[in-house]
Amino acid sequence: MSSSGLNMSRRIRRTPFTNKVEECGVTGFSVVNHMLLPKAFKKSVEEDYWHLRTSVQLWDVSVQRQVQIEGPDAESLVQRMTPRSIKGMKIKKCFYIPVIDENAGMINDPVLLKLNENKFWLSIADSDVLLWAKGLAIGSNLKVKIEEPDVYPLAIQGPKAEDLMAKIFGEEVRSIKFFNFGLFNFEGTEQVIARAGYSKQGGFEIYFKGYELGEKLWDTIWKAGKEFDISPGCPNLIERIEGGLMSYGNDFTRENNPLECNLEMYCAKDSQHDFIGKAALNEIRKDGIKQKIRGIIFDGDPCPTCTKPFPVYSNNKIKIGQITSGIYSPRLKKNIGLSMILKDYWNIGNEVIVETSDNKLRTGTISSLPFEE
Amino acid sequence: MSSSGLNMSRRIRRTPFTNKVEECGVTGFSVVNHMLLPKAFKKSVEEDYWHLRTSVQLWDVSVQRQVQIEGPDAESLVQRMTPRSIKGMKIKKCFYIPVIDENAGMINDPVLLKLNENKFWLSIADSDVLLWAKGLAIGSNLKVKIEEPDVYPLAIQGPKAEDLMAKIFGEEVRSIKFFNFGLFNFEGTEQVIARAGYSKQGGFEIYFKGYELGEKLWDTIWKAGKEFDISPGCPNLIERIEGGLMSYGNDFTRENNPLECNLEMYCAKDSQHDFIGKAALNEIRKDGIKQKIRGIIFDGDPCPTCTKPFPVYSNNKIKIGQITSGIYSPRLKKNIGLSMILKDYWNIGNEVIVETSDNKLRTGTISSLPFEE
Repeated sequence: MSSSGLNMSRRIRRTPFTNKVEECGVTGFSVVNHMLLPKAFKKSVEEDYWHLRTSVQLWDVSVQRQVQIEGPDAESLVQRMTPRSIKGMKIKKCFYIPVIDENAGMINDPVLLKLNENKFWLSIADSDVLLWAKGLAIGSNLKVKIEEPDVYPLAIQGPKAEDLMAKIFGEEVRSIKFFNFGLFNFEGTEQVIARAGYSKQGGFEIYFKGYELGEKLWDTIWKAGKEFDISPGCPNLIERIEGGLMSYGNDFTRENNPLECNLEMYCAKDSQHDFIGKAALNEIRKDGIKQKIRGIIFDGDPCPTCTKPFPVYSNNKIKIGQITSGIYSPRLKKNIGLSMILKDYWNIGNEVIVETSDNKLRTGTISSLPFEE
Repeated sequence: MSSSGLNMSRRIRRTPFTNKVEECGVTGFSVVNHMLLPKAFKKSVEEDYWHLRTSVQLWDVSVQRQVQIEGPDAESLVQRMTPRSIKGMKIKKCFYIPVIDENAGMINDPVLLKLNENKFWLSIADSDVLLWAKGLAIGSNLKVKIEEPDVYPLAIQGPKAEDLMAKIFGEEVRSIKFFNFGLFNFEGTEQVIARAGYSKQGGFEIYFKGYELGEKLWDTIWKAGKEFDISPGCPNLIERIEGGLMSYGNDFTRENNPLECNLEMYCAKDSQHDFIGKAALNEIRKDGIKQKIRGIIFDGDPCPTCTKPFPVYSNNKIKIGQITSGIYSPRLKKNIGLSMILKDYWNIGNEVIVETSDNKLRTGTISSLPFEE
């Protein structure tokens, strides 16, 4: 089954925007970081995909919880948590960082925001990074305060996002560079706005502070967005897979190291700083990785929703990996998937066999990521 | 809304029993610890309630993930994580323990199992205790190995649970005392079976090891259970609230300390051991707590499902707390709820006003927990 009922309770937290999302006719949610993530509205995934590529959408991604690390040891703790060097990182910059454990297993892949010299936010995927950071800080007696601030990201994505944002927050929004943020006024409050988001269509994320004011923000954007054909939305599965955007828990887990996840560029070979998992990562690099995330383009009619991984086989029937996110691309007119594939089979152009959940065997080809236009 | 669609993906992990639960006609799930928890079958919550009190049910509670802490420093790490003393804890015992942070905020309320002198399991509620424990261990350089073992609890609950379990695992099962466990054979594998479970109707939890063998276990219990009128089930909201069983994330969060949650008995005033949050907890005890979890019995027709907290007011309209789990009890013929209530209003018998989500104001009375028979 691709969906079932979700029983609601306080434990699965609502966001400042959940009432609005319900008014917009949300039909399905997922749960991320103990919070509701809207995942489906009245439009089909395909209709939603075309809309995202041409207009602008408003996404309630409050589930991207912030782990705020503040204090004299904040930078040193953050640096210890990631193989990526944050030395020289400027204020108002965003860094995508792998966070790994002592075995170099992926714990999360957040976006790091530097608010000031002693204050950072980790904008996280689905795991309690707050507990990890607090455990490390207490164990090591670091001088930091770690908490989840009253912040709920709202994404404005799509080619018309910039015009819409400029209309609301002023022309200055246009000058924010990719993976940078600025501070903007909304109703007398100071808000962090970054050029970022979980799509390749361009756009912004408002790291919205102040639960109570949330519906006013939603309504303001909604009203201003009418002339741009705004629609409620969510990370679109077709667009995300086409763009090679990975999802923690889906495409990789704590069982995987960052090198398997194509994150070598954030794991400098000659890194000068110390971090958790450094010895394990060096060992893995020495031995060479055994598998890696690749794209697969595969044949046949549109495949069913990939709610459980699709096994991938070599031509001689050996299991060589699995597709963890897969869908039919109406633009490429092929099925596409993100897959973890064994070394001997990961070469681009290699032929494979994909077993989809409708028990069909389909011919596939290993592809680089993102998928070619 | 009390339920909506849940969009499935690999990130929301299936259990060894999910196929079986689907065959049984599951209609709703919740998500706990990044895993599916069946929450509704064809029966109504009330039918399910009466069945649980008279027969036996099989619950897929695999979401109670185990955090395995093993090594020469295992006991010392576990002791550091809780105000409850585990000194002298015997092998094959289960302890319910509050796990708190440096501010004495509740991080989880797991059941601790002692497997041997150097090996423990924490059977957890909904938060990544594994990351907390690993962070502490790495920060403090402790000699422990911490992992999530291949273990998936399956609960057998209800008055006929013992007869059913004896039929499958032998008469020896009957001698397991409450909150103790024994080791039993299943198809040549050694399994941990405890007398425990998230109901007051009696029963067992099999901490089932070995994903692949899961369906065979389910089928074996199902077949043997036919003569006892076995049914698929899940923690029953009416039964849980009547029994005063709290739920982490629903009835208390990291914002609450264990004294507010009626867990004084696990926080000895003169505790000899050191633990995280000890200073904060002592400070709170000195000042006295400002709120506490109580029962409320309230009037009117059966209240709607409590998916968002119901505000609770004093007779003079001051907000004094909220009901976080609430439902109509068909046996007590009253609405009942678990609520966090301010000190000046928490006396048993005190009159309050409950605002349910159908916008009705209902008269209520503060009650002790569990609710009286």
